[in-house]
Amino acid sequence: MIMKNLNVGLLGCGFMGRTHSNAHRRVSNFFDLELKPVLKAICDVNEEKAKAFANQWGYESIETDYRKLIERKDIDLIDICLPNNVHAEVAIAAAKAGKMIICEKPLAMNGKEAEKIVNAVEKAGVPNLISFNYRRFPAITLAKKLIDDGRLGRIFHYRAKFLQDWTISKSLPQGGDSLWRLDAKVAGSGVTGDLLAHCIDTAIWLNGNIEEVCAMTEIFVKERKHLITGKVEKVEIDDASLFLARFSNGSIATFEATRYARGHKALYTFEINGEEASIAWDLHDSHRLQYFDHRDESIVRGWRSIHVTDGDHPYMKHWWVPGLTIGYEHSFIHQLADFLEGISKGKPTRPTFKEGLITQYICDAVLNSAQTGKWVKVKKVK
Amino acid sequence: MIMKNLNVGLLGCGFMGRTHSNAHRRVSNFFDLELKPVLKAICDVNEEKAKAFANQWGYESIETDYRKLIERKDIDLIDICLPNNVHAEVAIAAAKAGKMIICEKPLAMNGKEAEKIVNAVEKAGVPNLISFNYRRFPAITLAKKLIDDGRLGRIFHYRAKFLQDWTISKSLPQGGDSLWRLDAKVAGSGVTGDLLAHCIDTAIWLNGNIEEVCAMTEIFVKERKHLITGKVEKVEIDDASLFLARFSNGSIATFEATRYARGHKALYTFEINGEEASIAWDLHDSHRLQYFDHRDESIVRGWRSIHVTDGDHPYMKHWWVPGLTIGYEHSFIHQLADFLEGISKGKPTRPTFKEGLITQYICDAVLNSAQTGKWVKVKKVK
Amino acid sequence: MIMKNLNVGLLGCGFMGRTHSNAHRRVSNFFDLELKPVLKAICDVNEEKAKAFANQWGYESIETDYRKLIERKDIDLIDICLPNNVHAEVAIAAAKAGKMIICEKPLAMNGKEAEKIVNAVEKAGVPNLISFNYRRFPAITLAKKLIDDGRLGRIFHYRAKFLQDWTISKSLPQGGDSLWRLDAKVAGSGVTGDLLAHCIDTAIWLNGNIEEVCAMTEIFVKERKHLITGKVEKVEIDDASLFLARFSNGSIATFEATRYARGHKALYTFEINGEEASIAWDLHDSHRLQYFDHRDESIVRGWRSIHVTDGDHPYMKHWWVPGLTIGYEHSFIHQLADFLEGISKGKPTRPTFKEGLITQYICDAVLNSAQTGKWVKVKKVK
Amino acid sequence: MIMKNLNVGLLGCGFMGRTHSNAHRRVSNFFDLELKPVLKAICDVNEEKAKAFANQWGYESIETDYRKLIERKDIDLIDICLPNNVHAEVAIAAAKAGKMIICEKPLAMNGKEAEKIVNAVEKAGVPNLISFNYRRFPAITLAKKLIDDGRLGRIFHYRAKFLQDWTISKSLPQGGDSLWRLDAKVAGSGVTGDLLAHCIDTAIWLNGNIEEVCAMTEIFVKERKHLITGKVEKVEIDDASLFLARFSNGSIATFEATRYARGHKALYTFEINGEEASIAWDLHDSHRLQYFDHRDESIVRGWRSIHVTDGDHPYMKHWWVPGLTIGYEHSFIHQLADFLEGISKGKPTRPTFKEGLITQYICDAVLNSAQTGKWVKVKKVK
Repeated sequence: MIMKNLNVGLLGCGFMGRTHSNAHRRVSNFFDLELKPVLKAICDVNEEKAKAFANQWGYESIETDYRKLIERKDIDLIDICLPNNVHAEVAIAAAKAGKMIICEKPLAMNGKEAEKIVNAVEKAGVPNLISFNYRRFPAITLAKKLIDDGRLGRIFHYRAKFLQDWTISKSLPQGGDSLWRLDAKVAGSGVTGDLLAHCIDTAIWLNGNIEEVCAMTEIFVKERKHLITGKVEKVEIDDASLFLARFSNGSIATFEATRYARGHKALYTFEINGEEASIAWDLHDSHRLQYFDHRDESIVRGWRSIHVTDGDHPYMKHWWVPGLTIGYEHSFIHQLADFLEGISKGKPTRPTFKEGLITQYICDAVLNSAQTGKWVKVKKVK
Repeated sequence: MIMKNLNVGLLGCGFMGRTHSNAHRRVSNFFDLELKPVLKAICDVNEEKAKAFANQWGYESIETDYRKLIERKDIDLIDICLPNNVHAEVAIAAAKAGKMIICEKPLAMNGKEAEKIVNAVEKAGVPNLISFNYRRFPAITLAKKLIDDGRLGRIFHYRAKFLQDWTISKSLPQGGDSLWRLDAKVAGSGVTGDLLAHCIDTAIWLNGNIEEVCAMTEIFVKERKHLITGKVEKVEIDDASLFLARFSNGSIATFEATRYARGHKALYTFEINGEEASIAWDLHDSHRLQYFDHRDESIVRGWRSIHVTDGDHPYMKHWWVPGLTIGYEHSFIHQLADFLEGISKGKPTRPTFKEGLITQYICDAVLNSAQTGKWVKVKKVK
Repeated sequence: MIMKNLNVGLLGCGFMGRTHSNAHRRVSNFFDLELKPVLKAICDVNEEKAKAFANQWGYESIETDYRKLIERKDIDLIDICLPNNVHAEVAIAAAKAGKMIICEKPLAMNGKEAEKIVNAVEKAGVPNLISFNYRRFPAITLAKKLIDDGRLGRIFHYRAKFLQDWTISKSLPQGGDSLWRLDAKVAGSGVTGDLLAHCIDTAIWLNGNIEEVCAMTEIFVKERKHLITGKVEKVEIDDASLFLARFSNGSIATFEATRYARGHKALYTFEINGEEASIAWDLHDSHRLQYFDHRDESIVRGWRSIHVTDGDHPYMKHWWVPGLTIGYEHSFIHQLADFLEGISKGKPTRPTFKEGLITQYICDAVLNSAQTGKWVKVKKVK
Repeated sequence: MIMKNLNVGLLGCGFMGRTHSNAHRRVSNFFDLELKPVLKAICDVNEEKAKAFANQWGYESIETDYRKLIERKDIDLIDICLPNNVHAEVAIAAAKAGKMIICEKPLAMNGKEAEKIVNAVEKAGVPNLISFNYRRFPAITLAKKLIDDGRLGRIFHYRAKFLQDWTISKSLPQGGDSLWRLDAKVAGSGVTGDLLAHCIDTAIWLNGNIEEVCAMTEIFVKERKHLITGKVEKVEIDDASLFLARFSNGSIATFEATRYARGHKALYTFEINGEEASIAWDLHDSHRLQYFDHRDESIVRGWRSIHVTDGDHPYMKHWWVPGLTIGYEHSFIHQLADFLEGISKGKPTRPTFKEGLITQYICDAVLNSAQTGKWVKVKKVK
């Protein structure tokens, strides 16, 4: 296959900047694609950081102003790995400049902002992808296939949680480069946008729309020192967020996210119970899918622990041999491979920004319900 | 130790009649107690059933009218293993007759009825025990000890679920001797009283009072043939019941029970996350307690799977040798042993009927919230 | 069903005396059998112990001399729960007296002694059962059924181990009532007869004869204080015993038993790998059978964790409801129920003493190989 | 840090060629090292293959004759990812040319050949590394640390197995590019060199030298079509290889490898039981280390499941955030990082070829014992 270069301009040198850079650098070694990403420019307001990052990852150039990056003719794709509060500004500018865009989740600070982004990319007609990378864990992609095959039958229950424990200490500060996720002005919300957004995106992909929610949130540690101001300030993000939900297909659900579940580093789990079969997954053992099929002969019925590492499992033929696992970072590579293939074929790759907006509306409904103590209907995307 | 006989009159030849009979027959072989239960009389409205049951379990006599049983001078303890709708009537009569009483859970059809029972036993001053047997699984008793020792620190989260899958088939009827749990007139509620009641009782024992709840319920199969009338009738019990809750200690919770979770026979699980440590348990592997202690040295920190079968684990010195498991039925034997010891010492054994009333109030609040769609404060027991 | 009493005379008040007494007392409550065991007499050389045991379990009488017990006309069944070194003497006497016999494993101190016992019962024509109770764990009985159904295809591998850790401390003494298992004169061997015997019995039941073995044994703590002599004496039992084996069906195997595997209380595990399917089991979670079926569709293939608690699983219809577990002691009840049914039907119940002899020959070969450092052919039972 | 290029010439475009190429390409993105590998040349006898591989991985040039590659002045490091039968020839030539060498395991066809390689590199004084990548799984590196810290106390037992199931089908051929592992002339042995070699290398690293072994091997499928000759030929590799062993530290062991264990793709497991603590690991869940510490307080003692994904776990600070897993390929990157650091510091990186020779001698002893049916002492490395 003849490869064509696709020049990437990436914004942000944090955790997500690394996962996306790694994906761009590796995707061509493992997937046969027409488009080959080239690490053209890294952009960060901090020039030193940008230089060091460019050096480590092999970016050809650096920028410190996102506008300059977007103006550059040699850039095809803008990849936004910045804090939530600047997604909208950058994404809208990139769309206007006719760039393809990948944006880290959540799409924006709230539904209103997200709508503007969606309007911008739809007007510009540029390929766009919201980075909900969990869809590309092979076990989750397999779950989607099993559901689409109709194996589960009528769905009764969905339950998801995302449990972490890294903010329990009261001496942990908030804000700044490293802890902006604890600063409501930068993050928009706490675990709702950071963790529940992942749970919700997977849920709507696997189980369809959510109609209404009833939520509660909690702030366990009420104030923390702010890394920028140096002062002890009120904590305004949600430390924990729990909700009940009804899906359009009649199934009912519990969702929970927290950073106060001692013993869990990043335990994202979900389970779906259908009339005929059930599925369960767990990020801590992400290479396994649990599957129960009631059609199995009764005396040998049991939950099957599928080690999702065979050549006929999603994405796995691109990697090693059966039994050998891949990890977290590979979900970004798969996502990028799918996006690049979509561009070649002229087809949108899911989840588009529009799907990101659906999740944003659900997050808004969750926060609204937590505040009002009432069930809230989720706004529909037009 | 010199043993004194304690004459038991048991009502009901169903599943619970068997578990309680087994406990009465076996407790003295394994526990050194002053009181030795004697299977004096079994009572069932169906004489044939009562006879067969007496024969199988070695009851000395049978009765078919509960009033006759209660009147008998040779009966010390009334053990109620009947459907929920007759608990109040029998328990109040037994209290008036000055009998000791064990009653299967839930205590009554609702809080009002339960209040009357509590008033009756308090007036009569008779020993009473509501059979929430899960408290006596060694792993759960161990959990209680770890919490009481203060090992968990401030509690942030509680989550419990009780998942079954035995009513998914639409052709399953409702009502009658075998399926009264599906008949709202006999059971009072569906999974709320049957399954959530267990989750709630454990929760208030381990984590204190619940202040308020927000719930949803669902009936997935709307009508079923009734075994007594022979007609297809509306299903009025809750097939699934989910709720969010706030505890008095500031922790927040999700609870869920259903009989539509394909793949789970009786999966009662709970998890508690504290500042310093967390605990998790699962009825399907009931001999294990999962324990995470953040004070462990960081590089060897991990969830510990405690095989609760050592001589210094609760109740286990009475059984076999380390590594050898006991099962479900043993929780009833432990409960009975504790109750008999309490009688000997003149001390109430928890959970008393009064604690059963607390759970009843919470169940009432759950059903109320599910109907109104609002947060509901739980009524306090005086 | 009309029940006939079967009078039991049991020898030995230790751990096994308790498990067998419990089985005799409970079997009729759960199984519909013609024969109902009656606890007629308990026999122990220590009169005080016998009295206390009789009191706790409800034996009608006591004996202190096994000959007297065997002479008694009111005794139908002799149940031998004594240390290994007296099995032969008692069993042969019981056979001569025409009694039915149950004997704890291993059958004898060695193959020669065991042959004499087998000859005695065959000459007398009395029902006899060697208590290899693991065959009656529902999960293992299910494994047997799956194998007999031919589901596994050609067998390639068998592997079993029995790991304990209770003798690691050097300060643990040997000998006497409580620690005769560490005294070679009483036990015959160490883990070979105590633990490997179980592994071997299950193996020959599930996978057929063993042709030859190559073994090694080890004594990690070379001397221990003897509880009877009060002196530090040489340890002569095997602390650990490992062997390779060839089965008649062409499959090959590893076996291992030890009391020095820190972290394992009684971890008996086995696994069988066949051309089409594999099976694995673990005593620490004895209610589960792991089953892998290669005929499952490839993308959803995985080890199935079968929770062996359904009504159509072996023995389980006699107990509670799906999802609720039973424990170690129940294997003895099942074994007794099968034996009693065999007597009623005039059919031998496996494993008979003759099968106990097969295991004894294999244990002999293991010890012989460990001593000689060579492969040893297993003597065949005629 | 200023990086210096290190020019790599890699031989072999198979599975191992891919894992090593990936390591060379990625190591600098994640580790701060003085030396930066540059993919200078790929060598394969098949020119088409070499070209395609160069294109996919970004090699600057290709070679089809290994001698030419070794002669090139612009190559610093020769990386041998070829079938076992050519390791010696290439490695010795590379050593003579003064190149640094990485060689895939096993080092050679047998001990004699391996000795020659060791002599060559020692004479040339070139850095050399045998690729036993499992040492660099973070969980195994952690195990090593725990053992070196003395946490386990005296070691009693070691047990390891490597179970696969990919050669069960009789219609699978042998030989050629894709199946040379089944051809004894190319592979030297079957699972002994392919799988047991890994188990042995880990074992001697964690638990010291093996003194003597007693083994058995089996060929389950006796003949297979050869891909090169097109004829059905005798299978001469070992399909399964099992052995008992004594370590120098007095501990005893079982080892087993097979490609006929239905249900296991690449289940490499090991367990070590010490007086104070035990450790267990499993390649199918390679990010977890199981750890049991007897010094834990008795009522909360249990196997700890350590999710080896924290920043203070070996190698993990170079990757993502706690809870997010890496996979199989990362072990090669870690190995390379250690090797590059060793070169910079002028220190040999373990395992050197000399350690590869130890494993080779043990494999020879295993095959010898299987043939003779006797215990065999392992030859010592001078």
